[in-house]
Amino acid sequence: MPLADYLAGKKRQIDSFLDKYLPSEEDFPPRIHKAMRYTLFAGGKRLRPILAMAACEAVGGEDEKILPLACSLELIHTYSLIHDDLPAMDNDDFRRGQAANHKVFGEDIAILAGDALLTHAFLLLSQDSGLEPALQLRIIREVALAAGSGGLIGGQVADIQTTNRQLPPAGDKKGGAEILGPLLEYIHTHKTGAMFRVALRMGALAAGAGERQLQALTSYGERIGLAFQIIDDILDIESSTEEMGKPQGSDMNNRKLTYPASWGMSAAKRQARTLIEHARQDLALFRERAAILLELADFILRRRS
Amino acid sequence: MPLADYLAGKKRQIDSFLDKYLPSEEDFPPRIHKAMRYTLFAGGKRLRPILAMAACEAVGGEDEKILPLACSLELIHTYSLIHDDLPAMDNDDFRRGQAANHKVFGEDIAILAGDALLTHAFLLLSQDSGLEPALQLRIIREVALAAGSGGLIGGQVADIQTTNRQLPPAGDKKGGAEILGPLLEYIHTHKTGAMFRVALRMGALAAGAGERQLQALTSYGERIGLAFQIIDDILDIESSTEEMGKPQGSDMNNRKLTYPASWGMSAAKRQARTLIEHARQDLALFRERAAILLELADFILRRRS
Repeated sequence: MPLADYLAGKKRQIDSFLDKYLPSEEDFPPRIHKAMRYTLFAGGKRLRPILAMAACEAVGGEDEKILPLACSLELIHTYSLIHDDLPAMDNDDFRRGQAANHKVFGEDIAILAGDALLTHAFLLLSQDSGLEPALQLRIIREVALAAGSGGLIGGQVADIQTTNRQLPPAGDKKGGAEILGPLLEYIHTHKTGAMFRVALRMGALAAGAGERQLQALTSYGERIGLAFQIIDDILDIESSTEEMGKPQGSDMNNRKLTYPASWGMSAAKRQARTLIEHARQDLALFRERAAILLELADFILRRRS
Repeated sequence: MPLADYLAGKKRQIDSFLDKYLPSEEDFPPRIHKAMRYTLFAGGKRLRPILAMAACEAVGGEDEKILPLACSLELIHTYSLIHDDLPAMDNDDFRRGQAANHKVFGEDIAILAGDALLTHAFLLLSQDSGLEPALQLRIIREVALAAGSGGLIGGQVADIQTTNRQLPPAGDKKGGAEILGPLLEYIHTHKTGAMFRVALRMGALAAGAGERQLQALTSYGERIGLAFQIIDDILDIESSTEEMGKPQGSDMNNRKLTYPASWGMSAAKRQARTLIEHARQDLALFRERAAILLELADFILRRRS
């Protein structure tokens, strides 16, 4: 099956599950449920749940079994987008090609819709899943760690704190790469990488992966996560507003610390390619079962939005 | 032991656990961890974890066993205070007698500190607790439901949506009690009641409560939760700013829908007393093991801050 059809099929499966397990728009109080659904169903590739499911398959598990757990990752991702877009944070008016949550529902409801999506993620994670309960608890712990102040949130904090700083010009190795390099890597491995990493680990753990398999998929997750973010930064500069669903150049205008800004565009592209190549090598021990993960790695490198 | 000594001892136990299991202020990125700790350790009675522990004891369990799970309730409570105080929400500059989180750390960090406390609550809830893993998963589910858009967050949404509305004058039965009564009750049973209720249920479930015991403690939790909120509204009017740790009359100034505002002060007081009386009756089947819960019910009625 071509990757595009596979992705479309998984997205339908994930969206239909999310639609079923999220409170309906009519549930009281309707405004919060409308706001939760507004951004959740505004598009999005569902990459994190798809990665969890593909990792489960790579280890020989049945990917549908972890659908509920995998969907929790999309709720966490969506909550982080809603909060990131707030005026007090990145102040973005558009997301996924439409007005940001707070532009439609107000800042108060947007904050609470984010809170509710995060909370609902842990409701999904603790539902009866058919997994060994002790294993399920371990997965919840890993997700909470990845999403917390030592993961996703930590990355966002570091991102905010470097935004609007006077950055050394690209190519100024001393000021750029050496000083800011480690901070930039912290931001990307945490803001994006932590949730990619845990997506792979969730799928692997649910399928009963051994230590070597778990390590290989962890490494794959870290590498494609970092590559994904580097490419995000590149697209922010090179893509049109229409393709990205948010204003072109918004990172630059916000003076964000990005790979292209501090390493230069061609070094950033080279690094993304190298990461994807190494991620592909991580998959060697899964042989043909890793077919989807191999294609997903290429997909991340090729994506234009 | 007098109740004040019992409460002080439990508070020390809870604070020392929270101090140990929360990232230190030096952990990277330090700003978020400082912000999380700032409001968490700014005082607070630790009533929710204490109720969970007392419920565990009432059913014959050892209360220290559920300390980690019980402490998660304080993290959730604290996150909700930080987010409630934000300018986009209640816009309160003071909390627990000191400047609100966003006044010290900025709105961006305050939003993220709330997110991180909520996330950390689920990390605590999924730690190895010595409980049967399936039972622990059930407790996580109940907490997620109580904290979500059908519980705590739902109550906050309804609260926001009625704030600044033109309220009918107190005593206007038709406009006040009949129309707004159900909405007011929804706000209070959700905004405060849901977390009180789950505190009791958590303690009861961890101690292996039977269905009758569970129902009795659930009812007790709902009643004292509602009484607690009614008394909060009364104190907002009658107490000084110093006693409350936030500006006196702030609910009235925000034109919030409260019990005293819509039922009148003496009816509000009568209702609180009746709820506490019925809550005490819920405890009959636990005999002397419910001594602490009985005292806590009285404490909630008597409190001046």
